[in-house]
Amino acid sequence: MSILVVGSVALDSVETPFGKVSEILGGSATYFAAVASLYTKVNLVAVVGTDFPREQIQFLIDRGVDTRGLQMMDGETFRWAGRYDYEANTTETLDLRLNVFADFHPILPEGYEKSDFVFLANIDPDLQYEVLRQVPQARLTMLDTRDFWIHQKEGPLTMAMGVVDVVTMNEGEARALAKKQNIFSAARWILNLGPKTVIIKQGEYGVTMVSQTDYFRAPACPLEQVKDPTGAGDTFAGGFLGYLDKAGEVTPQTMKRAIFHGCATASFTVEEFGVDRLRSVTPEDIGRRYQELHQCTQFL
Amino acid sequence: MSILVVGSVALDSVETPFGKVSEILGGSATYFAAVASLYTKVNLVAVVGTDFPREQIQFLIDRGVDTRGLQMMDGETFRWAGRYDYEANTTETLDLRLNVFADFHPILPEGYEKSDFVFLANIDPDLQYEVLRQVPQARLTMLDTRDFWIHQKEGPLTMAMGVVDVVTMNEGEARALAKKQNIFSAARWILNLGPKTVIIKQGEYGVTMVSQTDYFRAPACPLEQVKDPTGAGDTFAGGFLGYLDKAGEVTPQTMKRAIFHGCATASFTVEEFGVDRLRSVTPEDIGRRYQELHQCTQFL
Repeated sequence: MSILVVGSVALDSVETPFGKVSEILGGSATYFAAVASLYTKVNLVAVVGTDFPREQIQFLIDRGVDTRGLQMMDGETFRWAGRYDYEANTTETLDLRLNVFADFHPILPEGYEKSDFVFLANIDPDLQYEVLRQVPQARLTMLDTRDFWIHQKEGPLTMAMGVVDVVTMNEGEARALAKKQNIFSAARWILNLGPKTVIIKQGEYGVTMVSQTDYFRAPACPLEQVKDPTGAGDTFAGGFLGYLDKAGEVTPQTMKRAIFHGCATASFTVEEFGVDRLRSVTPEDIGRRYQELHQCTQFL
Repeated sequence: MSILVVGSVALDSVETPFGKVSEILGGSATYFAAVASLYTKVNLVAVVGTDFPREQIQFLIDRGVDTRGLQMMDGETFRWAGRYDYEANTTETLDLRLNVFADFHPILPEGYEKSDFVFLANIDPDLQYEVLRQVPQARLTMLDTRDFWIHQKEGPLTMAMGVVDVVTMNEGEARALAKKQNIFSAARWILNLGPKTVIIKQGEYGVTMVSQTDYFRAPACPLEQVKDPTGAGDTFAGGFLGYLDKAGEVTPQTMKRAIFHGCATASFTVEEFGVDRLRSVTPEDIGRRYQELHQCTQFL
């Protein structure tokens, strides 16, 4: 069992009411792999520039992440700078430089094509589509995106969404894409593109999963402080797919448990800046938080 | 078993993206009683002016609501005018005229003082406090409020909160009162005033209940259209206390079921303008929606 993730490995600069950090390890594939690797084998595909401090991802290698797919290209690593205010549900992008991502084409090293699950993290939808064609036998494919691609590449994005099993998006981005205020209407609009399931991420309010026949709502773990929301969505996906891959079967039941695993893992991410908290978090920590979330939502 | 409700009976004018209505039956006590009376006996205390169209509340009397406590005073009935945009979680008050409420003092008709549960709906906190002194033996008291009283009467409001069992508030109002952005921090700040339980209403995102030792989160029922959110909070309280009174015991378990009843009842309120949907809703309708909410949140 293994998961293929294609996304960004980046250097992030982040400002929140609780502090400011500059050029720290970030990127959607990084966050995803940091968490999913606690559950299962992760095969990573991304690109960095010659300036990338490779020792930063040693902890991923230590967790068994296969980084043969991490290309190094001439040029600078992808940079993102953003700011959050106290209302941590909305992100303000201050700067975004694709750098080496501008000429990147994902190449799957031998064996990656046998991955059971595929996570197309937030990158150019054309690249997401390129990857999909290389993994025709995947059991479940999931795609994430963000505002930048909705505005820049709506056509390729909706095409890629049409051929995956699960689409996951932030609430505000789902509304923007569907041009609908109501999130259930927005989710149905996305379902009509083709995916079987849509998972709307609602920050501190949790997650809503909608399929053609069913829906499921899970609140986020109660946290008194959110220091840095960066990566919460990618680690949600990491816990979600990590659990599903480990569970070995995709059923309505395991999907719901996977949602709770996603919420539990994301709650650790936001406790510290960048991937700091994820360097030390253990499966036991996640298990405890899963139980807490279970306890504060489930009853007889 | 019975519930005493003290609050407003009003004439509301409401604008939403789905329409506009003028001088329709409204008021916190009205909404509460419309729903709680489907569960148990409701004793209502409020005031109206000589202009009040009394036949409008015949449906409450038909449901067994005791309206001996509905005083009629010289002057005009309480008026409220408000507007909601697509983001139905925030209310814009356009006009508010207390009218007869300016000189109102709640008087409990004989027998009302034996009510098991007391709901102090959104009215002047001084009046809420006056009522509390008249029901020293109540099993459970619950207080609601809104922005107007936070700004006008913060002192009396926090004093009244200090002597009830449950405080319920909208998310934004809890933040404003506690001067804290995080809702768990805001809830703890309110708990420190004295109540055993705080229930934060989060509109389409549901409800968060916080006590000294526990918390519980419930999402709202999934709705593709919210026509008019007016009264959602009061009918949440109606379903919550109505269920508790009927259940006959207040335990962590019945509190959680009561929250789900509150969410189910509130979901009907917002389907039509004013109390329109509540005139026809049945206990069976509520039961079905309770099951739906159960199904989309509970799992093994």
